[in-house]
Amino acid sequence: MSVTAAKGFTAAGIAAGIKENGNPDLALVVNNGPRRAAAGVFTSNRVKAAPVLWSEQVLASGQVSAVVLNSGGANACTGPKGFQDTHATAEKVAEVLGRGAIEVAVCSTGLIGVTLPMDKVLAGVETAAASLSEHGGEKAAIAIKTTDTVHKTSVVTGAGWTVGGMAKGAGMLAPGLATMLVVLTTDADLESEALDKALRAATRVTFDRVDSDGCMSTNDTVLLLASGSSGVVPDYDDFAEAVRRVCDDLGRQLIGDAEGASKEIKVEVVNAATEEDAVEVGRSIARNNLLKCAIHGEDPNWGRVLSAIGTTRAAFEPDRLNVAINGVWVCRNGSVGEDRDLVDMRYREVHIVADLAAGTETATIWTNDLTADYVHENSAYSS
Amino acid sequence: MSVTAAKGFTAAGIAAGIKENGNPDLALVVNNGPRRAAAGVFTSNRVKAAPVLWSEQVLASGQVSAVVLNSGGANACTGPKGFQDTHATAEKVAEVLGRGAIEVAVCSTGLIGVTLPMDKVLAGVETAAASLSEHGGEKAAIAIKTTDTVHKTSVVTGAGWTVGGMAKGAGMLAPGLATMLVVLTTDADLESEALDKALRAATRVTFDRVDSDGCMSTNDTVLLLASGSSGVVPDYDDFAEAVRRVCDDLGRQLIGDAEGASKEIKVEVVNAATEEDAVEVGRSIARNNLLKCAIHGEDPNWGRVLSAIGTTRAAFEPDRLNVAINGVWVCRNGSVGEDRDLVDMRYREVHIVADLAAGTETATIWTNDLTADYVHENSAYSS
Repeated sequence: MSVTAAKGFTAAGIAAGIKENGNPDLALVVNNGPRRAAAGVFTSNRVKAAPVLWSEQVLASGQVSAVVLNSGGANACTGPKGFQDTHATAEKVAEVLGRGAIEVAVCSTGLIGVTLPMDKVLAGVETAAASLSEHGGEKAAIAIKTTDTVHKTSVVTGAGWTVGGMAKGAGMLAPGLATMLVVLTTDADLESEALDKALRAATRVTFDRVDSDGCMSTNDTVLLLASGSSGVVPDYDDFAEAVRRVCDDLGRQLIGDAEGASKEIKVEVVNAATEEDAVEVGRSIARNNLLKCAIHGEDPNWGRVLSAIGTTRAAFEPDRLNVAINGVWVCRNGSVGEDRDLVDMRYREVHIVADLAAGTETATIWTNDLTADYVHENSAYSS
Repeated sequence: MSVTAAKGFTAAGIAAGIKENGNPDLALVVNNGPRRAAAGVFTSNRVKAAPVLWSEQVLASGQVSAVVLNSGGANACTGPKGFQDTHATAEKVAEVLGRGAIEVAVCSTGLIGVTLPMDKVLAGVETAAASLSEHGGEKAAIAIKTTDTVHKTSVVTGAGWTVGGMAKGAGMLAPGLATMLVVLTTDADLESEALDKALRAATRVTFDRVDSDGCMSTNDTVLLLASGSSGVVPDYDDFAEAVRRVCDDLGRQLIGDAEGASKEIKVEVVNAATEEDAVEVGRSIARNNLLKCAIHGEDPNWGRVLSAIGTTRAAFEPDRLNVAINGVWVCRNGSVGEDRDLVDMRYREVHIVADLAAGTETATIWTNDLTADYVHENSAYSS
């Protein structure tokens, strides 16, 4: 279903030959209107890939006719040539679709510091345009995979309108977005301002709280395109909630497929003085390599949770901290709590609750364990 | 030589039975004067172990007669009982040495959240006191090991005076000090104010710039004790430089023996606008798991260096960044530079230079690669 679940969109995914192994590597998503409203959120990394710099300009107008995405190369840290390549790709899409290049967003993912084989990219755009289909969403989702083992799609339906989407992301997942490319589509009849508001509200509590390995990408992009073809103007809150649900679902799929992971860890910070405190503490716990190793070893090592909390500026008193792992309060008042042998760690999902006893705010960060497979996959990625 | 290289000190290291495997686990370092001047630097983690809370009080007076250190248990997150145990240990040392307990610093290292077997600790103090020797420095250094594969000592000699020291530390190494216990001794004739100034200046550019795994400990302690028994008042700058050299040497030994590491990585940030910028960028690079995996795989993946720089607030322009790996400028002006195949990564030491092209300041952070061995060691540590 993916990006073609909503009416008014066609998509394609093809093998353009950018990846040496011949796997699909180029996707095209086209908004056939009547609207072309769009919103986008981009990486907060200050080293931004050429397609991010380009697409930020495209989104400034709030209008997007098409998105072209490639895997097999991030086109990041590629200098003026890299930007020219992105521009040329947009121009090619504009040409074959009969639209303006400034309405064509570009996304790339793969290795940093490698220029794209432009002959293959441009020929691939023609092939993709020729195979655009109202059923092309799955193929598009497959074509943007890098080290993803599965493609990721999600759909939520409202009262006469639909939000659908696809995502890729497996490593370099961290707040401020996370080597992820996400395209969401809807046939709801909305202006770009409403899309922007809903998208920012959704990403703030979903993709921005996914932190697989603490590494922030140069290419992260989340786009939301509206065709208006349902003819239905949705209730804003209903629509925003649908966007949040799709983002939440895709974010969870990213964590579920993170490189080398054997555990999905839900870090829930409760009773914080502020939401910012809760997020800071959650991220600190989620990024603690020693804890991530312990979870991999099915060791409910709450001492590593406390040592991570202790590095933050959040409001708390050390002797009032409580920590539960999978429902067992192994740490009470900053000290030994219930018997750690009661903690059942056999399952893939692990739930850590950190109680700061300092207020009423809460936040949840999703992360993974740290495994030898992660090390192997990321020591060999570019060689 | 270790802590007994300087005159006026005796030390011992014995097996008190705190560690179940029977390895040495209790060390005692005694300052026999005539001076008892001392300075200390402690973890900046807000969750502090009981011995840190105690020793901070001891150091407030600037006087330390003895230091008792145990491995086999960190006595962290152990509540009021943990603090009572630390206090009782200091009282026992004071009793057997005929000193005041408030002049006895206590250091502990090992698992968080486990109380110490106090009968063994107290009996061990008696055994250690009975075996104090002017040649006991090596045994003391051995007794504080946890997952360290080797014990760490260093000595620098000045004009009529000596600075010696011992360190333990293998994992949980990060700025703000780093699961490390360090005791430095000198026979120079100095007041605690001079010791404090020299120690803080030294740790700021040595231990605080060692970042093995980004995890900050609850127990880090660095102590400097002066006996004055050489009768020599050293030139302050000479003395401070000697302290810095001993700290630098011990810090390098910590990185050299970090858990599971196969590479030692020197991250040198140059041409930064401020020293703070240089340190922030260096730490960001040193903590990037993806880069640390790449270095493990002998992959000169400069894109991951740039993506790490991009997450900082330091002054720089993305298109002016340069990166050298082992002398090869693989990134020039934020883009592809010299051929990455020219980089020779076969050796244990890897040297990354990040040129921010934004000023004249510099800083060096030492770290390690991230390996499957690190994961294995830390998934199994407490089980």
